[in-house]
Amino acid sequence: MSIFYFIGLLGVAVSAVSGALSAGRKQFDLIGVAVLALVTAIGGGTLRDILVDRRPIFWIADPTYIWVILAAAFATVLYARFRDPPWQMLLVADALMLSFFTISGVWAAEERDHHALIVVTMGTITGSAGGVIRDVLSGEVPLLFKPAEPLYATASIAGGTMYVGLVKLGVAASLAGGIGMGVVLAIRIASIRWGWKLPVFRLGAGSDGRR
Amino acid sequence: MSIFYFIGLLGVAVSAVSGALSAGRKQFDLIGVAVLALVTAIGGGTLRDILVDRRPIFWIADPTYIWVILAAAFATVLYARFRDPPWQMLLVADALMLSFFTISGVWAAEERDHHALIVVTMGTITGSAGGVIRDVLSGEVPLLFKPAEPLYATASIAGGTMYVGLVKLGVAASLAGGIGMGVVLAIRIASIRWGWKLPVFRLGAGSDGRR
Amino acid sequence: MSIFYFIGLLGVAVSAVSGALSAGRKQFDLIGVAVLALVTAIGGGTLRDILVDRRPIFWIADPTYIWVILAAAFATVLYARFRDPPWQMLLVADALMLSFFTISGVWAAEERDHHALIVVTMGTITGSAGGVIRDVLSGEVPLLFKPAEPLYATASIAGGTMYVGLVKLGVAASLAGGIGMGVVLAIRIASIRWGWKLPVFRLGAGSDGRR
Repeated sequence: MSIFYFIGLLGVAVSAVSGALSAGRKQFDLIGVAVLALVTAIGGGTLRDILVDRRPIFWIADPTYIWVILAAAFATVLYARFRDPPWQMLLVADALMLSFFTISGVWAAEERDHHALIVVTMGTITGSAGGVIRDVLSGEVPLLFKPAEPLYATASIAGGTMYVGLVKLGVAASLAGGIGMGVVLAIRIASIRWGWKLPVFRLGAGSDGRR
Repeated sequence: MSIFYFIGLLGVAVSAVSGALSAGRKQFDLIGVAVLALVTAIGGGTLRDILVDRRPIFWIADPTYIWVILAAAFATVLYARFRDPPWQMLLVADALMLSFFTISGVWAAEERDHHALIVVTMGTITGSAGGVIRDVLSGEVPLLFKPAEPLYATASIAGGTMYVGLVKLGVAASLAGGIGMGVVLAIRIASIRWGWKLPVFRLGAGSDGRR
Repeated sequence: MSIFYFIGLLGVAVSAVSGALSAGRKQFDLIGVAVLALVTAIGGGTLRDILVDRRPIFWIADPTYIWVILAAAFATVLYARFRDPPWQMLLVADALMLSFFTISGVWAAEERDHHALIVVTMGTITGSAGGVIRDVLSGEVPLLFKPAEPLYATASIAGGTMYVGLVKLGVAASLAGGIGMGVVLAIRIASIRWGWKLPVFRLGAGSDGRR
């Protein structure tokens, strides 16, 4: 449990850095930095906890998450005054965070005996929703939907599905979780390295049915 | 119950098509198509369930909704490769969906003995919120607020109000629900056909009080 | 209690005016006016109630809030036809609303014995989230994050922190609440008057690590 708690804190810290950098590119003030760091880091887990009615919400039960996020956000602001952020390292840390959040979401849904499809969905929401909220609050179309991006939610779906499949085959939850995390990590990093992308759905510009 | 369940699945399918087409106009990738189809179809009902604390949320209790949405989204992608989507038919199907979702929201709030105003509000949220979330995630100002649009939320409010009034007068819930759906459908389709619109609130460009 | 209830209604009325004016600047139709007034006025409190699981949500328990908001929104539309809105007075009323909502959020979290950090966070969310949702639905980057703005969330954080500190020192909740509201009000108004702003986090345009 202890190691998972530590990875969880590392996960929110990395997400907070990503949110803070997003705020910096938008030239937000310090409140904007804090809010964007917070929603990026806890948005996915909060949405998961609300949807599956898991109370209290994780960061309300343990405010350590908030301190870690605020510390990571302000460290980012200070660091960026002097040096360029280490983008390569951040990508790897973010992939680690995605894999961890995915499996933590999967476990939270499984605890409640939800259907396999819901379990995988909750893993994906936990891993990806924070970034979507960050982008919406920044006034951007979510990166997640953009065809120019390497696989993100897809890696999360694949890892969650692998987990569910292994557990159905009788593999222990902890081992299946480790393998699921490995799958998320591998797909995410491979897709960055080799530029894997999903097909795009392109509708003609003249199309205008609505709703 | 069976016929309502079937209409409900048809409703989410139609909403999913609308979300998928929206993703196509924005040239999102397949994850973007799936997410937009999902939020459009289940966004309103999810918000309703969270607000009135109805647990588990309908699609967590019955994941059939998710399968239907994903199937409808991918069918849309395939169909659109070969033919232009049948916009006229989709408008009618969407009006049917709006009327169904409105009454399902009305019922969910009524079950919990909420005030008539809350009952009507929940009907409107269930019918309209999915489309608002779809537009926000697409980086668009919600169509719902735009004066160029035919009546949408208004049709939902009128149908919900009619339902509440009839029930107060002693009409059975099922009959009142049928009439309420008819009202939503009639207003929505008539407003498309004859271009009914709401008045606009236009504030001078120089106005700049904030918050 | 009675005076607090009255201030609460005044608070949502003022927020509703702000939402309606926002809709007017965007030239939304009357549904857009109503929705924007509603989300601005009850968005923060609703998010607070969902996060701390306080049921029923305040405006579902007492629909008077909805009537007051709709009345304020339509009064705004009528008033603006004939005269320019009294911007100065609205700024003061809004600062009053911020201070009231902050302390109401603080109390709601304290009732549930949450950690001091969560108490302050809930005060800030209750005071500020409605405006953020209003801006996102209007297709704008939230004013809250913008460096050109006088202190808003910061005033809320300061007032909530003052409240928590005083209560720790043994001051009665009602007195501490009054002082906390005074702090929010003073900082907000002083920052408007003298142009106080937070520092900005500016990241070079070439920066492009993502997520």
